Amino acid sequence: MNAQNPSRSGGRAARRAARAAPLADSLRPIRPGMEGGRYNPLSDADVQRIHHAALDALERIGLADAPPSGIDYLTGAGAILGDDGRIRFPRALVEDTLARANRSVTYFSRDGKTDLELSGSNVHYGTAGAAVHMVDVAGNAYRESTVQDLHDAAKIVDVLDNVHFCQRPMVCRDITDNMEMDYNTIFAACSGTMKHIGTSFTEPDFVAPAVEMLYMIAGGEDKFRERPFVSNSNCFVVPPMKFATESCEVMERCIEAGLPVLLLSAGMQGATAPSTIAGAIVQATAECLAGLVYVNAVKPGAPCVFGTWPFGLDLRTGAMSIGSGEQALLTAGCGQMHRFYDLPGGAAGGASDSKMPDMQAGWEQMCSSVLAGLSGVNMVYEAAGMHASLLGFCHESLILSDDLLGQAMRCVRGIEVNDETLAVDEIAQVCMGGPGHYLGTDQTLSRMQTESVYPTFGDRTSPKEWAEKGKPDLIAKATARKEDILGAPSQAQFDPALEAALRAKFNIHLKP
Amino acid sequence: MNAQNPSRSGGRAARRAARAAPLADSLRPIRPGMEGGRYNPLSDADVQRIHHAALDALERIGLADAPPSGIDYLTGAGAILGDDGRIRFPRALVEDTLARANRSVTYFSRDGKTDLELSGSNVHYGTAGAAVHMVDVAGNAYRESTVQDLHDAAKIVDVLDNVHFCQRPMVCRDITDNMEMDYNTIFAACSGTMKHIGTSFTEPDFVAPAVEMLYMIAGGEDKFRERPFVSNSNCFVVPPMKFATESCEVMERCIEAGLPVLLLSAGMQGATAPSTIAGAIVQATAECLAGLVYVNAVKPGAPCVFGTWPFGLDLRTGAMSIGSGEQALLTAGCGQMHRFYDLPGGAAGGASDSKMPDMQAGWEQMCSSVLAGLSGVNMVYEAAGMHASLLGFCHESLILSDDLLGQAMRCVRGIEVNDETLAVDEIAQVCMGGPGHYLGTDQTLSRMQTESVYPTFGDRTSPKEWAEKGKPDLIAKATARKEDILGAPSQAQFDPALEAALRAKFNIHLKP
Repeated sequence: MNAQNPSRSGGRAARRAARAAPLADSLRPIRPGMEGGRYNPLSDADVQRIHHAALDALERIGLADAPPSGIDYLTGAGAILGDDGRIRFPRALVEDTLARANRSVTYFSRDGKTDLELSGSNVHYGTAGAAVHMVDVAGNAYRESTVQDLHDAAKIVDVLDNVHFCQRPMVCRDITDNMEMDYNTIFAACSGTMKHIGTSFTEPDFVAPAVEMLYMIAGGEDKFRERPFVSNSNCFVVPPMKFATESCEVMERCIEAGLPVLLLSAGMQGATAPSTIAGAIVQATAECLAGLVYVNAVKPGAPCVFGTWPFGLDLRTGAMSIGSGEQALLTAGCGQMHRFYDLPGGAAGGASDSKMPDMQAGWEQMCSSVLAGLSGVNMVYEAAGMHASLLGFCHESLILSDDLLGQAMRCVRGIEVNDETLAVDEIAQVCMGGPGHYLGTDQTLSRMQTESVYPTFGDRTSPKEWAEKGKPDLIAKATARKEDILGAPSQAQFDPALEAALRAKFNIHLKP
Repeated sequence: MNAQNPSRSGGRAARRAARAAPLADSLRPIRPGMEGGRYNPLSDADVQRIHHAALDALERIGLADAPPSGIDYLTGAGAILGDDGRIRFPRALVEDTLARANRSVTYFSRDGKTDLELSGSNVHYGTAGAAVHMVDVAGNAYRESTVQDLHDAAKIVDVLDNVHFCQRPMVCRDITDNMEMDYNTIFAACSGTMKHIGTSFTEPDFVAPAVEMLYMIAGGEDKFRERPFVSNSNCFVVPPMKFATESCEVMERCIEAGLPVLLLSAGMQGATAPSTIAGAIVQATAECLAGLVYVNAVKPGAPCVFGTWPFGLDLRTGAMSIGSGEQALLTAGCGQMHRFYDLPGGAAGGASDSKMPDMQAGWEQMCSSVLAGLSGVNMVYEAAGMHASLLGFCHESLILSDDLLGQAMRCVRGIEVNDETLAVDEIAQVCMGGPGHYLGTDQTLSRMQTESVYPTFGDRTSPKEWAEKGKPDLIAKATARKEDILGAPSQAQFDPALEAALRAKFNIHLKP
């Protein structure tokens, strides 16, 4: 097949005119929350078997290490505390909880412009993680991540169309006090983006000061509770099948304070989860079902996300691996379970094992991103900027993910089939007495912008044009864009009075 | 979520022992021809609508420009030649042909070791195309492609596990005589790889000398006809809805000579095909159905591949674009139509618009590769090494595609669900009185190599290990591997007597 461009004469002026017209928001080819679900890695029977295996595991094995408060909540709801200290969940309890759980959660933005509706198979992509390094692309090196890096990441997320939320992707290594780190994470992220933010808390007692900060930012407790723009990403289990005692206490306090909770089960296949993909999904499902019972025992209907995040492992070395095909299957299989339960769900996709934003990073990030979206995961976490098997975060890669995730989202949007798109009449007109091509047809012109996602950084020039343009380098373009974004003021910065009040009350590490 | 490696003490020695044992071929985690089909971009009703729209188009619009021989074949089979010169296809003719067409085609290898069974939704990936440039990675430049480049590409394909066939990916620009180019393409490819080869012929009269060469390579006409290891990639249509007169004549001669035929319809969305994804699939389906009738009129049951290859177009510029999400949907939608017809099918996936093997190339190549495989395309063409919207071929990228396509194939393999993989008993043993992790379990060790695809070039080291290893560069690794492969003798080289006979009879441009 020869790759010649078709004639450029037909309709060029018309195309240029159409391109000049601004595109109404409703006509954008992709939007946050498009509906996935056309990829089913599991058969219906497989889904049922995983569901029943998870119920078996909860009934027979249960979970150890609940905090005293959790034991009270759970046994109060009907769970059974065994002599071995494990809490077991009768099927009826789990099924009752599933029947009554919240099926639709809104992850609010601070300004109301980018609220995320987590329900059905609406797909959103965003950052997440706890990287300890920043990728220094220019220096081909890794360094420790700082609070400034986190703020910069939030500023970048704020301007990217296809990165829909900003869960904290890295740890502020320059803040040694964990309580200060927790509330500084909120300060750095909230002052960088209006989009929904997710974060963690190291200890239960660190929730209160952070919540105080959130209420100040919101303009009052009532305002925050009405539209909580920060959620708690909570590793409430230590797989396999143990509650993370302190994190459970954190979770209780977050629920009380009005934060939605991501119930995050992050087992590693072959290490802290079974080595099979099916088994890792079973265990994650069981753990998240336990979490769902827990949350609903604390507060019926409390907003939470079913966070099955099983990770892959390179069994040859024992090292984590998140860029693999096995990871894409783990994540997509979880997405299908979320749909089965009709619960707001999240999983990890779109991260790379590569150290740099190279070709490996591209293929790894796309593989799990697009399969996660097609399987209908509501919240695809770790989907932007994540490298080195989650150990490193990269601002250039984050920027490029806007192209990558836009493409994945175009796949999620799928193929529209109706009389107009089937185009038999158009084919007839073009072929019989018509021009013999489609370049200038009304149908082509009208769809130029509404049907196609055009890359911002991805290069589509011919080799000749590419050489004439000085052979633009993908990474150099991303670095230039990064400098533009970081050189401009944050759209989310606090008003001066609030900023002063926060700095007076808290030990803020981010430089003004 | 923190990315700490699990303890490496548990089972390291056992893992090392297991790794040392050679893996039987039957235990390889992925193999050519694994079954796809778990991704359905179209609903069942959408598939029916596309089918009926294609039948409508064939009945109402038909195809122009059939050669006189084709008019005879087609009208003899029941098609109707109109006063406007277009041949129209009554529904009953198409449906009868569909009922009787060959549902299973073998694409033979020369040595019988890598035969491809094209049936059901068995997935194979390989090269294809007509690039006119080679990507010079070290020089960051493009140059004209040569017969040596083609031979080198075949040698590389020969040793890559996950590149299953070698359709000619580039044009030998250093051979100005088109007849010589056609048979030299066969010589250069066949002397480089034993895998199945696909090629094209510029004019009908060029088929005979090439076939003479093929019969010599096979050791006789009867031997070639028994196991045709070269197929004809045939652009039998000039979309929209016109036969390519000369290519149809080429096709007739190839069928007579015993070559399987790829019926290749390569419309460009918005230029030579409708601008909608659905419409482009309708037109490609209609054209390939016309081709199917044609082939079966020439020789009932002749082996052919239903080659719906609609390509994307950047409507802003009129340039071809093959790396997009729209392209992945076009290809996957075609794959679903192949499954609906239960015909051996091929489509294009895995090519990039990027000029170099960079992050863009990675995400673009993975997107359409993995969706093509999951949709069950039997032959995913253009899936390795293809850049610059099909204008450039890259040996380094071809080598890296072995990792990329291995990962895509792992996704095609999917998730096995049975009592053992669900692992509830294993979870119980590990959690209740067991070690609390899965690192050393029999299940984990036994699956270390059979369940996981490990990358050859992809890097999974930690940032620390990566720095200690001197920060290995992906492209440099691929270049080193290329030099190894090209420095070794071809496993497919002809025996000296055959080579001498071929060189005596034909004007061979490849240096001995």
